Amino acid sequence: MFIKKEKFLIISRTFFDKLYLRKWGNIMKNKMITSRDIDFAKWYTDIVLNARLAAYSNVKGCIILEPKGYAIWENIQKVLDKKFKELGHQNVYMPLFIPENLLNKESDHVEGFAPEVAWVTKGGSKELEEKLCVRPTSETLFCDHFAKIVTSYRDLPKLYNQWCSVVRWEKETRPFLRTREFLWQEGHTIHETKEEAEKEAYQMLEVYKDLFENYLAIPVITGQKTEKEKFAGAEYTLTVEALMYNGVSLQSATSHYLGQNFSIPFNIKFTNRNNELEYVYQTSWGTTTRIIGAIIMVHGDDNGLVLPPFIAPQQVVIIPIGKEKEVIEKAKEINQTLNENNIVSFIDDSDKTPGFKFAEHEMNGIPIRIEIGPKDLANNQIIIVRRDNYKKEVIPLDIDIVQKIKDTMTIMHKDMFNKAKERNESKTYVCRNMQEVEDVMKTNPGFVKAMWCGKEECETKFKEIKGMKSRCIPFEQEQLDDKCICCGKKAKHMVIWGIQY
Amino acid sequence: MFIKKEKFLIISRTFFDKLYLRKWGNIMKNKMITSRDIDFAKWYTDIVLNARLAAYSNVKGCIILEPKGYAIWENIQKVLDKKFKELGHQNVYMPLFIPENLLNKESDHVEGFAPEVAWVTKGGSKELEEKLCVRPTSETLFCDHFAKIVTSYRDLPKLYNQWCSVVRWEKETRPFLRTREFLWQEGHTIHETKEEAEKEAYQMLEVYKDLFENYLAIPVITGQKTEKEKFAGAEYTLTVEALMYNGVSLQSATSHYLGQNFSIPFNIKFTNRNNELEYVYQTSWGTTTRIIGAIIMVHGDDNGLVLPPFIAPQQVVIIPIGKEKEVIEKAKEINQTLNENNIVSFIDDSDKTPGFKFAEHEMNGIPIRIEIGPKDLANNQIIIVRRDNYKKEVIPLDIDIVQKIKDTMTIMHKDMFNKAKERNESKTYVCRNMQEVEDVMKTNPGFVKAMWCGKEECETKFKEIKGMKSRCIPFEQEQLDDKCICCGKKAKHMVIWGIQY
Repeated sequence: MFIKKEKFLIISRTFFDKLYLRKWGNIMKNKMITSRDIDFAKWYTDIVLNARLAAYSNVKGCIILEPKGYAIWENIQKVLDKKFKELGHQNVYMPLFIPENLLNKESDHVEGFAPEVAWVTKGGSKELEEKLCVRPTSETLFCDHFAKIVTSYRDLPKLYNQWCSVVRWEKETRPFLRTREFLWQEGHTIHETKEEAEKEAYQMLEVYKDLFENYLAIPVITGQKTEKEKFAGAEYTLTVEALMYNGVSLQSATSHYLGQNFSIPFNIKFTNRNNELEYVYQTSWGTTTRIIGAIIMVHGDDNGLVLPPFIAPQQVVIIPIGKEKEVIEKAKEINQTLNENNIVSFIDDSDKTPGFKFAEHEMNGIPIRIEIGPKDLANNQIIIVRRDNYKKEVIPLDIDIVQKIKDTMTIMHKDMFNKAKERNESKTYVCRNMQEVEDVMKTNPGFVKAMWCGKEECETKFKEIKGMKSRCIPFEQEQLDDKCICCGKKAKHMVIWGIQY
Repeated sequence: MFIKKEKFLIISRTFFDKLYLRKWGNIMKNKMITSRDIDFAKWYTDIVLNARLAAYSNVKGCIILEPKGYAIWENIQKVLDKKFKELGHQNVYMPLFIPENLLNKESDHVEGFAPEVAWVTKGGSKELEEKLCVRPTSETLFCDHFAKIVTSYRDLPKLYNQWCSVVRWEKETRPFLRTREFLWQEGHTIHETKEEAEKEAYQMLEVYKDLFENYLAIPVITGQKTEKEKFAGAEYTLTVEALMYNGVSLQSATSHYLGQNFSIPFNIKFTNRNNELEYVYQTSWGTTTRIIGAIIMVHGDDNGLVLPPFIAPQQVVIIPIGKEKEVIEKAKEINQTLNENNIVSFIDDSDKTPGFKFAEHEMNGIPIRIEIGPKDLANNQIIIVRRDNYKKEVIPLDIDIVQKIKDTMTIMHKDMFNKAKERNESKTYVCRNMQEVEDVMKTNPGFVKAMWCGKEECETKFKEIKGMKSRCIPFEQEQLDDKCICCGKKAKHMVIWGIQY
């Protein structure tokens, strides 16, 4: 009976793999997910829930980050935190609450954030004398502190970062992309000179770009936000913009040059090298758990999540086919070798069928699957299957398996990046009039490249087309035309436009 | 001039070190701190502020964790997080808010926490339909989630942990020890059997004990809280109790066996191995940034913070005496060697005087100071100074410096632990009547060991003596007497009593 099942599985693995086993797995799990081409929003939610990244909570608009989702965030934190520290930043922790009078100090800032904050009005059984908002971002707290600790240019720069959650009372929410509470990091730095602060803002944008491209395999466009779209209180905002599978764009990280907009009302003065009092120059920059949403929407497919190998909390799953002692032992040996060489690997030797396991680990997005069966062992080989393109490779057991897996991850990362890049290119349109914009966005939405005069009236015109907005004025400018796409007057910039999450 | 100063410093380093240079440093910094024997509370605050661990914020009762304070917390997190994961726990993130109806589900729990929670009543400009409390602890959120995800014994155990901040609307606050918001971790686990859950509760207490004794060099007493002092909603609470320099005790970590107290009202049921429906058995356990307060109050001295070497964010400071090229180069070489061997070292080659630097790094608690001057170099030696006991050692440069520093840290850790342990022993009193308790607590407070009948009336009697409370029923019981210290009736346990933070 045991041998029969074993034989059957090996045969089916060879002939019916995609046809039979995957479906069998899905049917057994009773977790078929919606096709992303049929209903993208439903597909997205199906992955969030079935890959157990997050769950809905009893608190409206707030999600629970389950272990698999939180582990991705921990890996993102590791990459960024290391980089921040290498660049001289220090972590701190500011209070969760902001007194109303503090929030009100910078007028653009309060105007931007006050409508969407949660207010604490009671402590214990008493009404508070001054209500406290739950931080939507912490510029005001950092500024208040900076004003107390800085007196001389010798105290500068201060390069601080904070890992925490923030709250914005959104009306419509969607797991990871827009929730009332979300996890993020917020960098806050103050500098002696404008030049140094601006350099910092640009530098941190590059850190984010590096994260997206070299760890998450997500190609991004970097550029500057228009005046209308910049952060409430900033001189200007730099941004990292990514395009999702469905052509909707996602603002993925931002870096703000705040100039002296906060240091003046918060009175952050220092004695400069000429022995004069001067206000500091400031930046802030952040990225959030919405990155996890981007990973899903850039790489995921109809079988579930596809995790980029360099950010995946579990990189390799080893599935022994059958229960033969030699097979299990070989699986354990390979597992140990990989883990000893900094590849996060685990064995699934549960009682589930191989087909079920294949489907489950595909749903969870594990980058590489290793299959070992008795026949493989007899032939001194194992089978490697890539999650991103399902490519199978038969690997002789006498090669360096660690190097093979490392190489496979490197290639996989590049392939995932290139696939996304090609898709982005196929969804990026050069438009010269608004009708063209409407046409392309109707049939196959994506990024629109078009010239712009710099006036808000023209920018706002785009909103009529599916709520489009300017994404950014990209650093890589092209002279597509010399006229604004909207008013026909002299163009100032090429702008990337799109629909946003 | 340069040589003169140099000579002077080397001489003074030898002869006047404690007398002169340290004072000079302190005077130059203008940051003399209060002596801990004169005003312990003031001494504590002086260290918090001058060692830049935390700063007061504009939010009443909330502190700012400055880089040096937060870095200690990061190191504590690293130790615990690694251990938690090795034991199979997974990190998750639950919402910051708890709807009122959810908090109300377990009656003891709500009774314990409701009087001290902060309430969010407004989101944006609208009054909320149901007010939300800012989590004081997250049992209710975890339970609500567990009820949704558990159906069978195959789903058990769930071993979750969360790193976050919690809020308790305290009236009197003190940096690290009691603040309205504080950082902590909270573990929440559910199990198939009572035995497994109880084992977990005891296991996690051992994890905390290991942290305190083997990383923080803080000796602790472990035991069980009395009924009166247990966590609101627990079957019983296990605790780690430490004694501060001034004889006040600090509850440093707790681990609760919750039994089915939460699983019944929250309806967390599973099908057990006999195919019957059963409620899960639960634990929760946590420790907080108050640990940083314990480090200050156990190890600190009149020159500032003293950091245990295995938790110190910076373990070694190298101070070149003078600016001679060879000296600086040797300092750099040693610094690089140490850092390459996982010892966190840095050079202070700023323009401040050596005396100023000595005082500053003593204030900051850096465990080991290395001094290198031209004379030392000529003699092919360096000088090592331990922060805990100011012991100086001349080290020939041809020995293995990495091993020497590692050995010094190990000895230093042991010495710090033993010093605290001896102090605790000298402040632990066996008392046989309440008058004895009053006498010892008046002259030199500490832990009192006394027999207790188990009745709350007798327990409450202690409150009359400086607000004393039972700290725990220690696991290591001694049969001091067979009568209760208070009522004279048959004693049930030996209890440790003390004044608490």
